[in-house]
Amino acid sequence: MAHEHVESLNGVSFQAEGIFPVRRTLPQEVPVAMVYDGTTLAVMMASPQDVLDFAYGFALSEGIVSSLEQIERHEIASHTLGIEARFWLREDRRDALKRRRRTMAGPVGCGLCGIESLEQAVRKLPVIQSTEPTFSHLDIATATDSLSRQQPLYRLTGATHGAGFMRPGEGVILVREDVGRHNALDKVIGALASEKIQASTGALVLTSRLSVELVQKCAMAGCSTLIAVSAPTAHAQQIAQTVGITLVAFARGGGFDVYSHPDRIKVELRDVP
Amino acid sequence: MAHEHVESLNGVSFQAEGIFPVRRTLPQEVPVAMVYDGTTLAVMMASPQDVLDFAYGFALSEGIVSSLEQIERHEIASHTLGIEARFWLREDRRDALKRRRRTMAGPVGCGLCGIESLEQAVRKLPVIQSTEPTFSHLDIATATDSLSRQQPLYRLTGATHGAGFMRPGEGVILVREDVGRHNALDKVIGALASEKIQASTGALVLTSRLSVELVQKCAMAGCSTLIAVSAPTAHAQQIAQTVGITLVAFARGGGFDVYSHPDRIKVELRDVP
Repeated sequence: MAHEHVESLNGVSFQAEGIFPVRRTLPQEVPVAMVYDGTTLAVMMASPQDVLDFAYGFALSEGIVSSLEQIERHEIASHTLGIEARFWLREDRRDALKRRRRTMAGPVGCGLCGIESLEQAVRKLPVIQSTEPTFSHLDIATATDSLSRQQPLYRLTGATHGAGFMRPGEGVILVREDVGRHNALDKVIGALASEKIQASTGALVLTSRLSVELVQKCAMAGCSTLIAVSAPTAHAQQIAQTVGITLVAFARGGGFDVYSHPDRIKVELRDVP
Repeated sequence: MAHEHVESLNGVSFQAEGIFPVRRTLPQEVPVAMVYDGTTLAVMMASPQDVLDFAYGFALSEGIVSSLEQIERHEIASHTLGIEARFWLREDRRDALKRRRRTMAGPVGCGLCGIESLEQAVRKLPVIQSTEPTFSHLDIATATDSLSRQQPLYRLTGATHGAGFMRPGEGVILVREDVGRHNALDKVIGALASEKIQASTGALVLTSRLSVELVQKCAMAGCSTLIAVSAPTAHAQQIAQTVGITLVAFARGGGFDVYSHPDRIKVELRDVP
């Protein structure tokens, strides 16, 4: 069966002017199981579109694979109860999977999954050395507006997050949406890999706040710049600082704040009053 | 060690008027391990305040215990890496824990944790039969404003979610905050149990959107009414309808929509134009 992306529901609206029938378009939310070599590793609640991108991004973010070539074969199976993303891994990844399997399991749109101790919760992340790419003030200042113009599901429902990929001088070239902000980011990371676009050539852009796992996903994807509409947590900022990510927050209304590695943003003389 | 609730960070703000140094207060986010009888069941990223409430609420929401009397003893241990909430369970709960252990593990602020198949993702929830309590139009219309006036962490950081408990005629009497909306709700549910306030005597109130796990937590707590500032997902509405929960969404500016069991809201004649 196919899962609808949205559903129209009748309700009763209580307003100052009185009580009225109301019909709203709500986003759907379905369980998605990530299945590797026949065994389920995690089930997450997610928006049912772009499930293959989601599964690719999740596998990359969680370090199940380091490139899509390590996935020998895949199937997306839709059931009444939800969706299964079935991957069969190349032989050399199966040991990595076994190690991971005992320590994780997934929930709704969250990256830090089932790690069974505080030590394991502090993930080892690749450190980004390159100072490239660099961005103009305008690249960053227009990124979240550009993202928000490419969110059809949000326009219908007002209740989903968006994640996008922006390249210097090109704007946001790829967008994915989900009820969960972690899932939306995994979908973009998966779509980039699927379309063979290097995440290291641009910035990831989010409609949400910036918590630790979003910075972790960005680092795992090898992307050096993360831009969000809202605030970071202090811990997210510390990780970004440590792994070499430029963290841009409060990016709205043409302005933004930078909390780590601001050197990737080129300041032109006309920017300084 | 004690974990700070907030941290002040220096950044660089790029605005239309120019580039300025900026100092913002950001919420902290630490790994919290839920440890039962010496073994870790889940680690979640959370705000470090009210960890005991969080651990109580998580144990209740996940069905590890059905009342706090089933916890024989507890310790909250703060480490550099994070916080451990250690519970020792009454003997009759240990089998339930063993069954649960194999099928879950926790992430950042999400209720549907590590359930290793789609069937398990569809949790069995108690059905709420009582039509009590009932609420006036005013009880509901003022709930989210009342909640937002009791969020000191949000006032400092602008980056956290709040959850509260409202009783008819009394307003929001208990509030907890967290970087994760699922954690904030668990903290309120835990605080209610700790203060021996029956969740069935009022409504849970959230600053966020309504996804499936939030409705599941509400049902597990035995609370018949869930009020949120923003939109529900279609699946969340279906579950609320099935388990007898009154789902109130878009509760802001004095108005609100009801999507299931509107009979708990008393309409007075003056409400109808």
